[in-house]
Amino acid sequence: MDSVIRSRLDPHRQVTAPLVRWQGGTSTSSVDELVIEEPLELRVGPAHLDSGEEEVTLAVIMRTPGHDEELAAGFLYTEGLLTGRSELVGLSTGADIDGLPSENVLVVRAAGEDVDLARRAQESGYSRLFAVNSSCGVCGKNSVAAACAVLPPLPTGDFMVPVRRLYSLPDQLRAEQKVFASTGGLHAAALFDQDATLLALREDIGRHNAVDKLIGRALLDGELPLRQRILLVSGRLSFEIVLKALTAGIPIVAAVSAPSSLAVDLAAGGGITIAAFLRGDNVNIYTYPERIAGD
Amino acid sequence: MDSVIRSRLDPHRQVTAPLVRWQGGTSTSSVDELVIEEPLELRVGPAHLDSGEEEVTLAVIMRTPGHDEELAAGFLYTEGLLTGRSELVGLSTGADIDGLPSENVLVVRAAGEDVDLARRAQESGYSRLFAVNSSCGVCGKNSVAAACAVLPPLPTGDFMVPVRRLYSLPDQLRAEQKVFASTGGLHAAALFDQDATLLALREDIGRHNAVDKLIGRALLDGELPLRQRILLVSGRLSFEIVLKALTAGIPIVAAVSAPSSLAVDLAAGGGITIAAFLRGDNVNIYTYPERIAGD
Repeated sequence: MDSVIRSRLDPHRQVTAPLVRWQGGTSTSSVDELVIEEPLELRVGPAHLDSGEEEVTLAVIMRTPGHDEELAAGFLYTEGLLTGRSELVGLSTGADIDGLPSENVLVVRAAGEDVDLARRAQESGYSRLFAVNSSCGVCGKNSVAAACAVLPPLPTGDFMVPVRRLYSLPDQLRAEQKVFASTGGLHAAALFDQDATLLALREDIGRHNAVDKLIGRALLDGELPLRQRILLVSGRLSFEIVLKALTAGIPIVAAVSAPSSLAVDLAAGGGITIAAFLRGDNVNIYTYPERIAGD
Repeated sequence: MDSVIRSRLDPHRQVTAPLVRWQGGTSTSSVDELVIEEPLELRVGPAHLDSGEEEVTLAVIMRTPGHDEELAAGFLYTEGLLTGRSELVGLSTGADIDGLPSENVLVVRAAGEDVDLARRAQESGYSRLFAVNSSCGVCGKNSVAAACAVLPPLPTGDFMVPVRRLYSLPDQLRAEQKVFASTGGLHAAALFDQDATLLALREDIGRHNAVDKLIGRALLDGELPLRQRILLVSGRLSFEIVLKALTAGIPIVAAVSAPSSLAVDLAAGGGITIAAFLRGDNVNIYTYPERIAGD
């Protein structure tokens, strides 16, 4: 991810919808662009194409089409189903229920003696099940920070950013965020380096998906962990976003809006700096403020 | 839900966090309130308490504590695991992994010869799996509207609302939304009747959860389907929100922000009116505009 990878949603996939626009008590007919949401079905295929084994549905992700391979790779990695690039043999388009090729189906093939994605998914759970069914066990514990020690905390002291560089991030995000302007419906996530240079931006109707696409790109490029990166998300900061950042080794997570209690807990235990309410020349640092430098 | 049920998050659960507040190049120490996010583990218990059967984890929902029984009931209903109030025998607090009572564990008991929640969950899938693994099969079809015909569309023509009443909804939502003001981190969803009277409001860090809490309340009160109700959500409108509304029989779904393409598709096929970008004296009606009346 050394060069800027811009968000490119397939322009053919933009859809418009007729609508009735009310202003006060009168209405007019109009047409509006809609942000696209479609299901992406992830299936596990056999490691060897000619093995004759059947494909198994692993998950369905409601997402904005585009960068689907990244989304699949990032999802599998941050949900703990893939442990690295080397396990991923192939990602290819699958067939719909009528047997026709479908852009909404991706078949994942993984390799290695101990790599059985379907079994891992069943054993560990994923999606909403991730938290409890993994060894994290947050439900029974009062402290996520303690419970999530299964993911080793990131080292501090090796990555520091001047606060004024943080201030420049949201404007860069907005400038790059093409789709939002026309539809008003997308979340964005972006990766920056220490100099606050934007490296990659992804948009999606799902906040988590935008982050998974970024992390998936890095996985596909063999660039994990992202120890010298800042992650910025356009909205609020939840536990799951911080968990994904921790999985990918990202030391600073910034957000335009508020963090949740569990996001802060996990960041405190995971060695992640949370920089939230990043607006204008203001930012709140909730954890590890030593990574942020003043004038 | 004839009386106003206000959102009451347990005030004891408000948490504050220390933080470093940067303004320009200088920093000060401060303290801020955080919106609470905690995992709720849903377990299936035996229908008869003394049967000796083991509890099975069904799902973990990251949520803002409060109205947890409603959330559980609404989640189970909108995910298709419970088909009605009569199947629900009990909801009770469970034990954490140390065996201590935990507010983050709810044990669901369901009754009926054919009611096996764990099996239903495995067969139908839920959460992100809902779409594909149910009989809906959206992935393989280009048209969700066609594929989702398994849920019969709502009748039109029996519920109509003057557009000026719609305009009053967001202000009522904001006036009732207590927690957002202090933390900036919560989504809200509310139910209104035909006169635009606010009947119930729920807040949660998860958009879906706020809707599930509303629908769960109605389920517990035996008030489903909600054929004479308007649902308003504070943010964007995704497929899943419309699917929940369709499951609960709600004819008008309003949102302050944009709808997605799949949300509009599903509404078109499901007989639901979508009223989005509801701001000031403006609103866009994407489907079934005949339910909205002018001056």
